[in-house]
Amino acid sequence: MAPSGSAPLLVASNRGPLSFVERDDGTLEPSRGGGGLVSGLSGLGSDDVVWVCAALSDGDRAAARQVEDGRLDRNGHDTGGMAVRMLDIDPATFHRAYNAVANSTLWFVHHLLYAMPTSPAFDSGFRREWSSYAAYNQAFAEALSAEAAEGAKVLVQDYHLTLLPRLLRDLRPDLRIAHFSHTPWAPVDYFRVLPDSVARETLLGMLGADHAGFHSARWARAFAACCVEVLGAEADNKQVTYDGHTTRLGVHPLGVDAEALRERAYADDVETRLTALRHKLGDRKAIVRVDRTELSKNIGRGLLAYRELLRQYPEWRGKVTHLASAYPSRHDLPEYREYTAHVQRLATDIEDEFGTDDWRPIVLDVTDDYARSLALYRVGDVLLVNPVRDGMNLVAKEVPVLSENGCAIVLSTEAGAADEFGDDALLVNPFDVAGTADALHRALSMPDDERRARTDRLAATSMRLPPSAWLAEQVAALD
Amino acid sequence: MAPSGSAPLLVASNRGPLSFVERDDGTLEPSRGGGGLVSGLSGLGSDDVVWVCAALSDGDRAAARQVEDGRLDRNGHDTGGMAVRMLDIDPATFHRAYNAVANSTLWFVHHLLYAMPTSPAFDSGFRREWSSYAAYNQAFAEALSAEAAEGAKVLVQDYHLTLLPRLLRDLRPDLRIAHFSHTPWAPVDYFRVLPDSVARETLLGMLGADHAGFHSARWARAFAACCVEVLGAEADNKQVTYDGHTTRLGVHPLGVDAEALRERAYADDVETRLTALRHKLGDRKAIVRVDRTELSKNIGRGLLAYRELLRQYPEWRGKVTHLASAYPSRHDLPEYREYTAHVQRLATDIEDEFGTDDWRPIVLDVTDDYARSLALYRVGDVLLVNPVRDGMNLVAKEVPVLSENGCAIVLSTEAGAADEFGDDALLVNPFDVAGTADALHRALSMPDDERRARTDRLAATSMRLPPSAWLAEQVAALD
Repeated sequence: MAPSGSAPLLVASNRGPLSFVERDDGTLEPSRGGGGLVSGLSGLGSDDVVWVCAALSDGDRAAARQVEDGRLDRNGHDTGGMAVRMLDIDPATFHRAYNAVANSTLWFVHHLLYAMPTSPAFDSGFRREWSSYAAYNQAFAEALSAEAAEGAKVLVQDYHLTLLPRLLRDLRPDLRIAHFSHTPWAPVDYFRVLPDSVARETLLGMLGADHAGFHSARWARAFAACCVEVLGAEADNKQVTYDGHTTRLGVHPLGVDAEALRERAYADDVETRLTALRHKLGDRKAIVRVDRTELSKNIGRGLLAYRELLRQYPEWRGKVTHLASAYPSRHDLPEYREYTAHVQRLATDIEDEFGTDDWRPIVLDVTDDYARSLALYRVGDVLLVNPVRDGMNLVAKEVPVLSENGCAIVLSTEAGAADEFGDDALLVNPFDVAGTADALHRALSMPDDERRARTDRLAATSMRLPPSAWLAEQVAALD
Repeated sequence: MAPSGSAPLLVASNRGPLSFVERDDGTLEPSRGGGGLVSGLSGLGSDDVVWVCAALSDGDRAAARQVEDGRLDRNGHDTGGMAVRMLDIDPATFHRAYNAVANSTLWFVHHLLYAMPTSPAFDSGFRREWSSYAAYNQAFAEALSAEAAEGAKVLVQDYHLTLLPRLLRDLRPDLRIAHFSHTPWAPVDYFRVLPDSVARETLLGMLGADHAGFHSARWARAFAACCVEVLGAEADNKQVTYDGHTTRLGVHPLGVDAEALRERAYADDVETRLTALRHKLGDRKAIVRVDRTELSKNIGRGLLAYRELLRQYPEWRGKVTHLASAYPSRHDLPEYREYTAHVQRLATDIEDEFGTDDWRPIVLDVTDDYARSLALYRVGDVLLVNPVRDGMNLVAKEVPVLSENGCAIVLSTEAGAADEFGDDALLVNPFDVAGTADALHRALSMPDDERRARTDRLAATSMRLPPSAWLAEQVAALD
C-alpha cells in the first residue's frame, strides 16, 4: 500500500480519548477520556497526531459512521486538537478479540491468573477467537497505514494490539513503530501455556516494532527470555534480534502529572467527601486501598491480612479503620463476579468478627467514585497496594503526591512500582498474608517524621517521568 | 552428635518399602511397597542399607512402637534384606508437614497448580504448618545421624524432605548427601509465591546436599535459577555454589525395569482383564490413559480433547473407545474431590453427546486396579499422557515396553519424559485441547509399521536407565 496519509505521529490503542453516548433525540454526546496518554500527547504538538482506536459502544459506532472513514473532525469534538479515527469493528469480532483473547487470555497469562488444573483450555472455539483478534489487529494496521505519512512514527499500546506492529510493518515498512506494554510480561514457562502458534505469533507481532517498551526492566527481561526460548531469537537486556530485524527494549516507568492530579484532587467534590471521611474516621488511623475489582489486584488477601493484623496485633482494634474502595470491573466475566462476591463475604466476616457498637473495622465501598478515591488518597495514613502482579500500579504513585500527612505504602514486590520505590515502601510478598499483616503493623507504628520523609521521597520518584516525558522518551527512541 | 551408626548407605523418604495393617487380633500384617527405589536397592547390596521413612498409618505406628527405636528387624519382614526404620511422628505434626506443606504447598508450587487470584494465602496458620514441616525433617535428620557410619552416603527423596540435607549436614558434616526431586521444579516467578523465608529455607535445605538430582535438565536449570535469584548463589547448569559449599546438579531420568514389569504384566490377573477388555473393544481402536486423579495430570482437558476429536473428526465415531483409568488420589483435599467430580461430569457429557446403542465412546474407570492398568498398557493403540506438568511420568515409559501391537504416545511437552522421547512421541501443549485432538487423530491414523517402529524406539529409551542404574549413578556421584 503506498503512503497516502499525512500524519507524522500516530497512536493506536483499544480505548481512545473520546467516547460517545447516543441521546434520546439521536444526537451524540461526546466525553473526553482521561489517562496519561491524552494529557501526555497534548505536550507533543497534538495538531499533528492521529489517534486510531476502536469504537467501544453503540454510541461510538454511531459516531464513527457519521463521519467518512470513522475519522472524527479535528475541531468538532474536544480531543485536545487530535484527530481521532474510531474503527467500527463488527461487534462479534470485537467481543472475541477484546473479551475472549485480550482480557480472558493474554491478560491472564501475563498476570498468572489461571487456575491451571482446569483453565485455560484452548479448543476450536479459541481458534476462531484468535482469528478475530488477528482481524481486529489487521483493521488497526490498515487504518494506520492509510493515515500515516512517509516515515511516520506510530505508538502502539498494550496487549490488545500485540500483532499490530508486524502487520503494520508488512504494509508500511517505511514507518517507525513502538509498542508499549502496560502489563507485566509472563515468565517463559507460563507464556508457553498459549498454543504454540499463538505464542509465536504474539512474539513475532511484537518484534515487528522497532522499540518495545515496558514499565519495568523485569518485564522487558521476561519478554526477551520468551523470544529466546520460544522463537530462538538472539537477545540481551537491550534488544532482541530475529530474522534480521532488531527490536530495541526500553524501560519507561510511567509517572504522574502532579500538577493536574493536585488540581483535580482539590476540587469541591473531593473536599466534600474528605469532610465526610474525616468525620467518620475521628482520630482513628486509616488504612486505605483503591482498586478495580480485578483478579490481579489481590483485594481478598488484602482483607485477610487486615483480619490477621487485628488478630495478631489486638492493640489496633478500635484504633484503625480500613477504607477499601473496590469499584466494579469486567462484570461480564463470571470469574470477576465471583471474585467480587468473595471480597464482599470477607469484608462481612471481618465486620462480624471485630465490629462493635462504636467501631466499624472496615468500610468496603464498591461504587466507582473518583472524587472519593482522591479523598482517600489525601487522608490515608497507610496505603495497601498488594497486587499478585501488576505492570506498574499508578495508585501507588498518586498517593505520595497527594498525601496530606504522609502515607506509608505497603507495596507488593510484584508491582512494577516496587522496582522504583525499593525500601522507601514497605515491600511485601502478596501471597504472604501474615507477612502483609506484619507490614501493616509496621506502617501503622511508623513515627510521623519517618512517614513524612518516606512519602516525600516516594513523591519525587513518582514525578520522575510524567506522561509527557514518558511519551517523549518513546518518540525519541524511534529516531 | 558423634557418629554412632554402622550403615554405609541410607535412604530417606516419606513412604517406605513396607506398610502395616493392624489385624483384628492385634497382629500386624506387613505388605511390601513397590516402586523403583525398592527394586533398585536390591541390586546395591541391600544388606548394608538402612531405609528411614515415616510411619504413615496406625498400623505403621504400632509396628514402629513394637521395636526399639522404630527399627524393624532386618529379617522379620520382607524388606528385601534392608533394615527399615519407621519414624513415629506425632499425627498432627505429620498431617501439617505432609498434607499442608508438602502436598498442598510445595507440590502445588512445582506443578503450577494454584488459582492465584485467591490461593495460596500464607497466614499465621501456615507458619505453624511450616514449623511442623521443619520438625518432620529434623526427625529424619536425627534418625539418619544415629544410623549412619562415618562418611556414609545418604539418598534423600523428594519434596517432603527438602530441609533434610542441610539439617543432616549440620549434625554430621562427614556424610555425603544426595537429594533427588521426583517432581518438576518451579520457575523463579512462581517459586517466589512462597513466603520469602520459606523460599530461602527450602533452597538452603537442598543446598545442604552434595548432589541434587532431577529427572530432566529443565528442572535442574529451574532449581539453579531459583538459587541465583532468591539466594544470590553462583550457578551454572552443572552446580550451585553458595556460602562456600558446592552442590553438583545431576540429571538422572528414571527408566523402567523391563523384566520385572513384563513378569507382572503377564500374570493371570492381567490376562483375565485383557480378555474382558478385548471383548469390550471388538475391532475398535483403543485410546488409553492411566493416571491418579491428580490435579496435575490434566484428565479434564484430556476428555475435552477426546470430545473435540469426535466433533472435528467424525470419521472416528463408533470406531474408537477411550479407556480412561483415573484412580482416586488425595481425597482428603477438597480440590481433589471437586476435580474428580469434574472429570466424571465431562465423561458423562461425552457419553450423552455421542453414545449410541452399539457404542460407548468412553469408559471411565475410577477404581484402583493395577492389573487392569497393565492390561490397558498391553492393549492400547494410542496412549494419552497430557499432564500440566510432571517430573517424569513413568506410565509413558512403561507402555512402550508392554505394548503388544505398538502404541502411539500423545505426550505433553511439560512431562520430563518429553525431553528423552522427543519426536518419537507426538508432543502436545497440554493446554491446547484442539491441538491435542489433532494429535489424537494423527496417532489413530498412524500406519502400523510406523507405530511399531516408534514404539520400539520409545521402549529402548525407556529402558536406558532402569532403577538399579539410576540409583547406582547417584551413589557414584557421591564418590
